[in-house]
Amino acid sequence: MELEPKSSTRSRKSCINFMFWPWKSLYIDGYVNVDGNPICECYSCYGGIDCSLFSSNCSANVESGDPLFLEPFWMQNADSSAVVVAGWHRMSYVFPNNQSFISKELEKSIRKIHAIAKNAITYGKYIIFGTGSTQLLHAAGHALYMDNNYSTKVVANKIPYYSLYKLQTEYFQTRHCEFGGDSSMLKNNSDFAGNVIEFVTSPNNPDGSLDSPVLNGPNVKHIYDHAYYWSHYTAIPAPADEDLMIFSMSKLTGHAGSRFGWAIVKDVNVYTRMMEFIDLAEMGTSKDVQLRALTLLKVVAQGGGKQLFNFAQQILTDRWKKVSHIFSLTKRFSLQTIPTQYCTFFERTREPSPEIGVALMATYAWVKCKRTEDKNCQEVFRVAKIIGRSSRAFYAGDCYVRFSLVMDQQDFDMLIHRLKELISQEYEASAQYMSI
Amino acid sequence: MELEPKSSTRSRKSCINFMFWPWKSLYIDGYVNVDGNPICECYSCYGGIDCSLFSSNCSANVESGDPLFLEPFWMQNADSSAVVVAGWHRMSYVFPNNQSFISKELEKSIRKIHAIAKNAITYGKYIIFGTGSTQLLHAAGHALYMDNNYSTKVVANKIPYYSLYKLQTEYFQTRHCEFGGDSSMLKNNSDFAGNVIEFVTSPNNPDGSLDSPVLNGPNVKHIYDHAYYWSHYTAIPAPADEDLMIFSMSKLTGHAGSRFGWAIVKDVNVYTRMMEFIDLAEMGTSKDVQLRALTLLKVVAQGGGKQLFNFAQQILTDRWKKVSHIFSLTKRFSLQTIPTQYCTFFERTREPSPEIGVALMATYAWVKCKRTEDKNCQEVFRVAKIIGRSSRAFYAGDCYVRFSLVMDQQDFDMLIHRLKELISQEYEASAQYMSI
Repeated sequence: MELEPKSSTRSRKSCINFMFWPWKSLYIDGYVNVDGNPICECYSCYGGIDCSLFSSNCSANVESGDPLFLEPFWMQNADSSAVVVAGWHRMSYVFPNNQSFISKELEKSIRKIHAIAKNAITYGKYIIFGTGSTQLLHAAGHALYMDNNYSTKVVANKIPYYSLYKLQTEYFQTRHCEFGGDSSMLKNNSDFAGNVIEFVTSPNNPDGSLDSPVLNGPNVKHIYDHAYYWSHYTAIPAPADEDLMIFSMSKLTGHAGSRFGWAIVKDVNVYTRMMEFIDLAEMGTSKDVQLRALTLLKVVAQGGGKQLFNFAQQILTDRWKKVSHIFSLTKRFSLQTIPTQYCTFFERTREPSPEIGVALMATYAWVKCKRTEDKNCQEVFRVAKIIGRSSRAFYAGDCYVRFSLVMDQQDFDMLIHRLKELISQEYEASAQYMSI
Repeated sequence: MELEPKSSTRSRKSCINFMFWPWKSLYIDGYVNVDGNPICECYSCYGGIDCSLFSSNCSANVESGDPLFLEPFWMQNADSSAVVVAGWHRMSYVFPNNQSFISKELEKSIRKIHAIAKNAITYGKYIIFGTGSTQLLHAAGHALYMDNNYSTKVVANKIPYYSLYKLQTEYFQTRHCEFGGDSSMLKNNSDFAGNVIEFVTSPNNPDGSLDSPVLNGPNVKHIYDHAYYWSHYTAIPAPADEDLMIFSMSKLTGHAGSRFGWAIVKDVNVYTRMMEFIDLAEMGTSKDVQLRALTLLKVVAQGGGKQLFNFAQQILTDRWKKVSHIFSLTKRFSLQTIPTQYCTFFERTREPSPEIGVALMATYAWVKCKRTEDKNCQEVFRVAKIIGRSSRAFYAGDCYVRFSLVMDQQDFDMLIHRLKELISQEYEASAQYMSI
């Protein structure tokens, strides 16, 4: 690895944090050196004892959906967002005043955030906590198929789809239940007489489309994965009002590492079964995580929620503009388009950007390699030092690749740098220069 | 409920905590009043706005295994055990220096604690984190039976047994896998040709016995539930050195509400499958919980671990003495006996107490109703205002009841009070008075 000194203060992740915050003991959960002192944690492409060495040869890593673009928001709100936990706090399995695994204050906060964000109706519905939306997707599926003594097919709404639904269904090997691909497989198979559970990811991961169910009928049940249904990532045409909806703190506040999510459930029987699942899987959700979630959501709710929502929207709008502009200059690759929608949260239409004619933002860039010879799109970009997630991971062949737009600024800047390098090759080939 | 004023400061749980600790915001995760201020959380049998009203008519609730007897230890170690978490801390799914879900520092701390406690050999073995031992018991079972395409029986070591093994196996309905009762069912059934997984709970919940596997052979695999294998609860004759052992923070430090446990695993394939389980179930274990666990385990390790281990042992020795003494005065009920063992941690024999001839401590009192007419032992005690867990919950009929000895002091004192009342009835019946 080629390392060269660079004086960017942004390279020093932990070291900056030490400057912000006097308690070094905060960082004891990372690596420590032989003297017991924490070792600096560097942004991608930086190394050395104080992370000051920049590797100009390094790849842009935009493979994961880690929502670190929100980290600066929490640095700006340091006082209100810090949590102090006494050693004896919440040692019991239950909250003493209601003998429940669930903090009622946190439940109230979640209902309030949805009312502010205008993205889901919680009135008359139950709320269940889980260890990330990951656990709740599993719990919801199990609650819906556990009473079936005959065949149940679990399907994803459409291709491309998030892999977890398939991986969980196959890994946990529940009796009488199997994964059936995407909804079209069953829509075209009128012979199937069993029960169907359709996962509807809306906005969709990876391409951001706001999807509706494909299958309907008395034997079909739906689970709405609404992890990205926040005004950060999409227009909110109307509050969602489905029977079983799942959200995560990860994509709302950026705290993926905390592992906290919630389900909003209309039917009392489904609610009861999902609670049983959470109880038997791990006797409720950590009180430490609930306390942190409550603290963070209270900050989000301050001032009618505008502060976080505006912050997130501004960053992702800016990033989408930059990425869209670059892809408008190439014939080799194309970017998904997202139709214009009225957003009830910002109370305005997400107007198409005049330069490029697409919607203003997305969580991921979903990029197609258009040349016949570029059979493996992920590999084309890997050679160009951009690490994305192959469309194969979304069961959509090899012609696409997903790039995260929610990583930290360092990774995004490197993505833009490498994209410019790659796309400028088209112009160099025809002896032209691009101004990007 | 009969409420009368009582001036005990110990009744005011949260209110005491406020006095100890200046940050009221610590307690926002409980109920709040209309002004947004936290409502006092009272010990059992206390009520009123400041928890000063004592209900002399209330029952002793010793049903759950909530290990609140360790709460005072953490109050005594307030400075070193508090955790401060900045709003932007550990937002990522992974620790940046190793791209893993696991804090390597916490893993090191766990190995250190076992070396100090002399209760398990971790050298040459892998460590996996989970959301409580509850999740790891499920993950371990799944890792051992997932590759079997033919029948697998899951069994518990012996009756009485902890219900979770049965409940999880039945609830999650994994293909080709079923619960087969206790080991004796298979030992007597030589026709069964499939694979067997035997859960060995040692010390056993509820009766505290140090058990060994009942089944052996090429088709039998064992999962050791060592949640109670700490010198708090039992003599430690030798460090455990099994292939698959599960421990929990709940029973080591008392932090049941945090939901943190770990497995110690010898075989790399079992380790890999359990890690897959944790990843697919919830994408790793909360970083907030890992940070708290690390902070608490560092306090435990201070001074060679003597402080916590001595504290816990002294309380439970004292409680066992009191309970044993009371049961030595009755012919209607009997208490389990625990054989004397050499303890490598305290480097002395747990000598039998001269008065009563039983070992010095246990987590639970496992009480038998000896009279023929006392058919439902739990009910006999319920009428006497003592709420225990029926032996039916341990698949051992109705003749026993389990009382927790690890609850907070308030509940333990009420247990002793109610036991004295009940047992004194035997003496009153024969016009005698007991001195207990």
